Amino acid sequence: MFLSKLSAYASSPIREDDILASKLAKEGNKVIKLNSGDPAKYINTPKRVIRAYIEALKKNENYYSNSQGIEPLREAIAARHKKVYGLDADPEKIVVTQGISEGLQFLNTALIDKGDKAILIRPYYPLYTSYLQIVGGKAIFADATEENNWDIDLDALAKRVKGEKRIKYMLITNPNNPAGYIISRKKLEEIVGFANEHDLFIISDEIYDELVYKGSFTSISQVAGDTPYMILNGMSKGFVATGFRLGYMLIPNEDEKSKALLLKLIELAQMRLSPNTPAQFAYAEGLRNLSAHNREVSKLRAILKERLYFATKEVNESDYMHALPPSSAFYVFPKLEMQKLKFKSDKEFVRSLLIEKYIQVTRGSGFGMPGHFRIVALPSKEVLEEAIDKINEFCKEHSVKR
Amino acid sequence: MFLSKLSAYASSPIREDDILASKLAKEGNKVIKLNSGDPAKYINTPKRVIRAYIEALKKNENYYSNSQGIEPLREAIAARHKKVYGLDADPEKIVVTQGISEGLQFLNTALIDKGDKAILIRPYYPLYTSYLQIVGGKAIFADATEENNWDIDLDALAKRVKGEKRIKYMLITNPNNPAGYIISRKKLEEIVGFANEHDLFIISDEIYDELVYKGSFTSISQVAGDTPYMILNGMSKGFVATGFRLGYMLIPNEDEKSKALLLKLIELAQMRLSPNTPAQFAYAEGLRNLSAHNREVSKLRAILKERLYFATKEVNESDYMHALPPSSAFYVFPKLEMQKLKFKSDKEFVRSLLIEKYIQVTRGSGFGMPGHFRIVALPSKEVLEEAIDKINEFCKEHSVKR
Repeated sequence: MFLSKLSAYASSPIREDDILASKLAKEGNKVIKLNSGDPAKYINTPKRVIRAYIEALKKNENYYSNSQGIEPLREAIAARHKKVYGLDADPEKIVVTQGISEGLQFLNTALIDKGDKAILIRPYYPLYTSYLQIVGGKAIFADATEENNWDIDLDALAKRVKGEKRIKYMLITNPNNPAGYIISRKKLEEIVGFANEHDLFIISDEIYDELVYKGSFTSISQVAGDTPYMILNGMSKGFVATGFRLGYMLIPNEDEKSKALLLKLIELAQMRLSPNTPAQFAYAEGLRNLSAHNREVSKLRAILKERLYFATKEVNESDYMHALPPSSAFYVFPKLEMQKLKFKSDKEFVRSLLIEKYIQVTRGSGFGMPGHFRIVALPSKEVLEEAIDKINEFCKEHSVKR
Repeated sequence: MFLSKLSAYASSPIREDDILASKLAKEGNKVIKLNSGDPAKYINTPKRVIRAYIEALKKNENYYSNSQGIEPLREAIAARHKKVYGLDADPEKIVVTQGISEGLQFLNTALIDKGDKAILIRPYYPLYTSYLQIVGGKAIFADATEENNWDIDLDALAKRVKGEKRIKYMLITNPNNPAGYIISRKKLEEIVGFANEHDLFIISDEIYDELVYKGSFTSISQVAGDTPYMILNGMSKGFVATGFRLGYMLIPNEDEKSKALLLKLIELAQMRLSPNTPAQFAYAEGLRNLSAHNREVSKLRAILKERLYFATKEVNESDYMHALPPSSAFYVFPKLEMQKLKFKSDKEFVRSLLIEKYIQVTRGSGFGMPGHFRIVALPSKEVLEEAIDKINEFCKEHSVKR
């Protein structure tokens, strides 16, 4: 066998139909892409961030940077966590990564040998499983379901982990992608209790923490105390700068696990030399003026909220799907009335939708939730309306006759 | 155990003393860094490339790109290989990566399970072993030595691979880092023969192909024929743009192995979404005007050659070290007269040199060649002269009394 066995776990449900979509577009079809959570396709990056990027390029900040990230950026990130969440974060405890994707890859390389396990919450972001499994890890799942208002079922999880050894971490996405829920402070405290009881490192992916429209967001840093944890975040969503590829890992605590993991992550970061350097200056400048950033995000939030709520309402007018109103991010994650439809799986649904209506969405099974699909609610209302109308029409055309 | 066992292989000899060097600098010492092969610290990126980058930012090309890289970039890369090496390369057979580092990581993930093997040539670029071992692979070494004028010893290699199973690839660095040799056309043909005989995929890292000062460079694409192979290259060195983090993998052939590997690499690329997008436009524009690029590289080559030859001469005036004159790249790789020195290892030599003289170089053992060290000959002659004088003085101070 030429390819490695583990590489069979490489998968990317969000992008798996990209080549087909490109082909359809090249054939002259108007493809509506609602698969990739990329605000920068629809909304401009703030001008002052672009200016800082240009400034860095003009100053020839084009060398390999510190592998952990340039100091001004790590200082600005630490200052933001202090200001927003009251966390005393040391810039030395931050590793800047090429997007959260690279952070996930580092994390799993640092912690997972073949047979090690990690707890993920369904529905999960697809890359959590791919990056875990590709190094030989195995997922143990907790569940949040819309029937339960997306409340994470820790009792069922407690039964599933009973007798399991070598569980390295528990990963939460707060706010959640794809379901758009936020985890309540009380539930977060229970998660911290669960992690302590089972000796688990907590990973909290908080990339959508600035895109909350309803309810109040609590960061893991506000409840974890001495429990070892890591925050994943980055500039992709809040700064509308997905293509700059900048994220970070923050491991603030001083326990042995946190210290060992941080050192290992720095070693892994050194191996790939550095993230893009001029972009780091743009991110640093973007964070340094936090009040300007807050004004920008506030406008962004208003735009995104309107589109998201509109798309949710449109979805819920259909007889073939329904979605709980999300509190954050920019995804609608409808449950399909599969018994009303002729499709055997959400995968077939999604593929046929692309081929017949030229609309690309992502199958729910990619998030660990078959029978669902994810709509990216970032385009204008007109486009969202057209797309969801077509999805509904498509459902009608493939409905079970009564 | 909290950290994974395999993560023990994370290592980066070139950057392992960076934290110590930063500490010494913060204490007010003038540290001369000759460890990182980063021309952008000394020489500016061509202005037209910077302009294209700025243009892309102004046009808000800030989204996640195609995971394989934007089409105009892949077309420009293919066109360059056609023009320079006569290779009919399809842009679809190129995967743009976040530097060659990411390419190495993809490559090893795609091909290596625990216990699989790969052939590396000593002295090697340190990350080849790290990225191989961190996924559980094992290196089988071929040797090039200065005694043999850096000729790769395939006869000894043939004995070492006898009876070995699961050897996946053979990786050559041509032109070489750290030793600065180029592989002759005849030797390349022998390597292709060896690869065919042992059913090995050839990986050719050609990142220094534009920085050749002596002799004539042959690309693997000029001799491989139908033998499956991959070229690694990127914009870091020839475009003086290390901090943009753009490299690529090119797999031109149509055999089953090449096709399977290409598909797998695209899947791995999709997992991390995309490289930095505006930088890709800069690279594309840089390559599109190939004659402007050739003029720029020609000037760059003249500057680098002068510094490299000067540093080599200085090194060879010392009684404690000597180096074969390199034909390419920007490294001097002296062999230490260890019997004249009180150091037990090159590691101790390099560490003490940093602490006592504030000069950071890289230990030869990091390249698989103990008793050597690597000097980056990129600073001005004045700095190089000062540094090499100090290294010589340091050797004297630690010499064995006669």
